[in-house]
Amino acid sequence: MQAIGVFDSGVGGLTVLRALKARWPAENFIYLADTARLPYGNKSLSTVHNYVGQCLKFFKAYDLKAVVVACNTASAAIIEKPIASEVPVFNVIEPGARKAVEASGTGRVGILATRATVHAEAYPHAILRLKPDAEVFQQACPLWVPLVEEGWIDDPVTNIIVYRYVSAILKNNLDTLIMGCTHYPVLREAIAKAAGNSIALVDSSQGLVEDLKSRIEMNEEATTGTVKILATDFSPRLEETARLILRGTTFDSIEPVDL
Amino acid sequence: MQAIGVFDSGVGGLTVLRALKARWPAENFIYLADTARLPYGNKSLSTVHNYVGQCLKFFKAYDLKAVVVACNTASAAIIEKPIASEVPVFNVIEPGARKAVEASGTGRVGILATRATVHAEAYPHAILRLKPDAEVFQQACPLWVPLVEEGWIDDPVTNIIVYRYVSAILKNNLDTLIMGCTHYPVLREAIAKAAGNSIALVDSSQGLVEDLKSRIEMNEEATTGTVKILATDFSPRLEETARLILRGTTFDSIEPVDL
Repeated sequence: MQAIGVFDSGVGGLTVLRALKARWPAENFIYLADTARLPYGNKSLSTVHNYVGQCLKFFKAYDLKAVVVACNTASAAIIEKPIASEVPVFNVIEPGARKAVEASGTGRVGILATRATVHAEAYPHAILRLKPDAEVFQQACPLWVPLVEEGWIDDPVTNIIVYRYVSAILKNNLDTLIMGCTHYPVLREAIAKAAGNSIALVDSSQGLVEDLKSRIEMNEEATTGTVKILATDFSPRLEETARLILRGTTFDSIEPVDL
Repeated sequence: MQAIGVFDSGVGGLTVLRALKARWPAENFIYLADTARLPYGNKSLSTVHNYVGQCLKFFKAYDLKAVVVACNTASAAIIEKPIASEVPVFNVIEPGARKAVEASGTGRVGILATRATVHAEAYPHAILRLKPDAEVFQQACPLWVPLVEEGWIDDPVTNIIVYRYVSAILKNNLDTLIMGCTHYPVLREAIAKAAGNSIALVDSSQGLVEDLKSRIEMNEEATTGTVKILATDFSPRLEETARLILRGTTFDSIEPVDL
């Protein structure tokens, strides 16, 4: 009974888990949330790299066919300085960059991300490797993760804050925006409203599905696999937020762990 | 050359350091910010207790005359379950509770704090020990710390969010509000505007000064001591935010440490 390990600093990566589970219901998933040390997005890349190493080490105790690092900041850290692993490790930055290059007509692409992801420049590098004449612009949106964690999803204050960051980056005359943090798809409606109809909104999930399909033998049956959530800091509120983000997708257990 | 150790999850406790340094300029201070794992305010009390234990252990390498736990959530954790220490340990909840009881005419007191501090009920317990007929109301304000960390201090969006939480707790007909998180005094102006003139606004600093004076032999000279800042996650931005919060108070060094 092999599983796919999915790892994030908190609940944001559940948007990725939801997309993978929708595509492969028969697969088993183990989701690890490093909630005791979240958020990663305002911390230095060397600290985040250290944390990712501990999480990958933790996953060694499980029989996994792949590990998905479902956090953009953690992905940036391991792209910059890869960590050896016996199991294939997937990140969410390279598939997001590829889908943005496919979506963009003008090659002018904007990145909405955490401060640490912006600072690492992982998206600009990944996009320029695929399309050297692209022009890439970045905007850090540090308040969006707290707003999602607070559950202010459909809220006028959230709309104002989303508009402030989106309108700043739109001044660069873009045609494509990457939601470069796994929390951001939760705010998709507010982001789309601020961006307008002419902007393509890209997240990493679709590209990640393609990456997994091309490199891993996935279980394509119609049966139902298990979903297990592990968290380094556990509270009843975590369970509530997990249900809010997963929507229809259910999980079998949620429990505390130490790294 | 003994020093006072001051500990917080991040930069919020610098509001406490500033108050202590203003009162005792000749004292030496060592400020430890656990920025690699901040914020504490949304995490469970047992995880926070674990982190405080590691920070107190770290301080053993220094010649300290006292340790000030300048974080309300960390204070709540050690009041609930004290940690043995050879050096006197001060918290910020008990002095804040005492000043609120002194300030209140009606005994109706409100607490603005992080989710974890509210959940721990440390302020209601501390106030009811001093004044058993008091009525205490609590309001968690989870977005205020991110707003301060983002530097949106004098901003209409911050005013809206401050007003939303303050107006909710004011429905209880209070005469006193405790700013029960060391970040919140940075938002004092917005909080005071939302609360109006008839509400007494209390923070822990004044009470903490009294507690130190009564239990520790403080250096009352007019010379100038040293201020050293240590942080578990270091970035140039940290230095910038530290200067913003400390205003006139200067520091001699700021450097990364591992716990």
